[in-house]
Amino acid sequence: MSHNHTYNVAVVGATGAVGQKMLETLEERDFPINQLKLLSSSRSAGKKVPFRGEELTVEEATPESFENVQIALFSAGGSVSKKFAPEAVKRGAVVIDNTSAYRMAEDVPLVVPEVNEEDIKNHQGIIANPNCSTIQMVAALKPIKNELGLKRVLVSTYQAVSGAGNEAADELRDQSQAFLNGENLEAEILPVKGEKNHYPIAFNALPQIDVFQDNGYTFEEMKMINETKKILHAQELPVAATCVRLPFFTSHAESVYIEVDRKGVTVEEIRKLMDHAPGIVLQDDPATQTYPTPLDAAGKKDVFVGRIRKDLDNEYGFHLWVVSDNLLKGAAWNSVQIAERVIANQWL
Amino acid sequence: MSHNHTYNVAVVGATGAVGQKMLETLEERDFPINQLKLLSSSRSAGKKVPFRGEELTVEEATPESFENVQIALFSAGGSVSKKFAPEAVKRGAVVIDNTSAYRMAEDVPLVVPEVNEEDIKNHQGIIANPNCSTIQMVAALKPIKNELGLKRVLVSTYQAVSGAGNEAADELRDQSQAFLNGENLEAEILPVKGEKNHYPIAFNALPQIDVFQDNGYTFEEMKMINETKKILHAQELPVAATCVRLPFFTSHAESVYIEVDRKGVTVEEIRKLMDHAPGIVLQDDPATQTYPTPLDAAGKKDVFVGRIRKDLDNEYGFHLWVVSDNLLKGAAWNSVQIAERVIANQWL
Repeated sequence: MSHNHTYNVAVVGATGAVGQKMLETLEERDFPINQLKLLSSSRSAGKKVPFRGEELTVEEATPESFENVQIALFSAGGSVSKKFAPEAVKRGAVVIDNTSAYRMAEDVPLVVPEVNEEDIKNHQGIIANPNCSTIQMVAALKPIKNELGLKRVLVSTYQAVSGAGNEAADELRDQSQAFLNGENLEAEILPVKGEKNHYPIAFNALPQIDVFQDNGYTFEEMKMINETKKILHAQELPVAATCVRLPFFTSHAESVYIEVDRKGVTVEEIRKLMDHAPGIVLQDDPATQTYPTPLDAAGKKDVFVGRIRKDLDNEYGFHLWVVSDNLLKGAAWNSVQIAERVIANQWL
Repeated sequence: MSHNHTYNVAVVGATGAVGQKMLETLEERDFPINQLKLLSSSRSAGKKVPFRGEELTVEEATPESFENVQIALFSAGGSVSKKFAPEAVKRGAVVIDNTSAYRMAEDVPLVVPEVNEEDIKNHQGIIANPNCSTIQMVAALKPIKNELGLKRVLVSTYQAVSGAGNEAADELRDQSQAFLNGENLEAEILPVKGEKNHYPIAFNALPQIDVFQDNGYTFEEMKMINETKKILHAQELPVAATCVRLPFFTSHAESVYIEVDRKGVTVEEIRKLMDHAPGIVLQDDPATQTYPTPLDAAGKKDVFVGRIRKDLDNEYGFHLWVVSDNLLKGAAWNSVQIAERVIANQWL
């Protein structure tokens, strides 16, 4: 980035799993920061966090914290965003919110820069960062929708525990060691912190991410369904999702079935689309056992696509395997990327 | 079972992951055994294995091993079955083969007793036990097909390492401990023993089970597709599968999407069907976070079904989450169950 100008930036939720990655990403991208303010709930206030070789102290967020802030990155839970994002906007900041608080609000753009960067310019102060599992899927679907049309999406997810925060990652670590020691597994966080029942995640799979809705779908599944339609500007597109939490730390994987609009599409055509798409890395060669895995994708900013196959019964059907680091492209990197686009286009 | 008569039984592959479970199941079911012969490749010959309080010695299989054997349970790999199953049949045994060697042979019934027990009676000596991931799925699909019709099946699997044998389970254990110790992960078995490349399974997901076919699908995926059609007697049924190996030891889980034939079907109707189906246990109540998990299903003989939801865009579409112990209903128990039906019906 060119640094003609620098900005006062606030990171709200700086000590969380995503907040930490936001700081790393801002540092790695050499983001044009004038002053960096780290904010949090009272619980984490006072903690020290390293940034560009210095130790910064996390402050408790108040409405006044946002005076003179131009860009505020929120990732401290929906209730914090609901309380403070309007205060930040009132004081002139552009808020990039990584919670679900504003995603479906009509006047809030929901943005994956490779997919719908143009939506940013209509923002009224808040720009929403989509759900992690949505981001990587729409990044892969967008070039397909553009070139081949998209009639249907059906996804089953394989999601990392870090999506539920650092406590969930600690729980996986502790339970895994207990299991290997032949000890009992104690479950207190997953599947959903604060829910009535908790189940072990170590050496297990939990088909619940976030709370259940009245229709029997989980909130995570409904997020994938609704956000995909909003980001792709395709309210009529049928999208179905089953979301599953699995015992790995980083990166979500997705088994995605799609139906395209055009007849006679080949696997090679979709491979080429993926190979040329921004933010996508094609890893697809059965002959050399080349395909993306969560462990491989961890720490990388791209979305990796492989296992592209034509459905054996449906001329329009294709299967894809989509993997990306849920804390980077799924959260921190996508948020910083939005901030970069805001600056580059002067959409402040 | 009534024990008017007892049988000479051979277990081929007695020291493997499935073989061990076969012995446990024979013992637990009080199977009417006169003489039990444990057979294996030369590599495992001489090992001692406990059965009904005695120590039995594993012998190297030869054609003559099958003299006077009435029921032979094979689970020592396809090449062993190909070599010795015909020898056993020649000597008057009924072979129940848990490998893929004979599954698609036209004159070999492929059987899940709850689904197509009647097919057993046409056997020519060999009865094939389906692939683990297929068995649990067709057990859930059969009552739906019978009552509501079935127009389409689309499955993404979440499969345990024990499906790749004891060595794969050891590999997961060793790698998990290494990961927790901050050490490097050594991969020598998974995704497929003997393949060129091996990848870590600990805290990871591998979208390859068995070798790749020319069409880009893995053999595991093609097994699910072809075996499902054969067992359900539905060659025209569209079946698609994506198979993924995950870091847990026991039980496969499956995210299954189906389309039924009848209009206006409700979730409650499918729940009732599952609740009354033989071999199926319904675990489906979002209000109490009730759904099947691999860890819960381990060591049990049933197939567990939950997360039943109507598709939001397709009147005929439903989503199910199907879990079962891959070594029991997926292998050992289904084989012993076939043997029990052979005896009960005098289909020897």
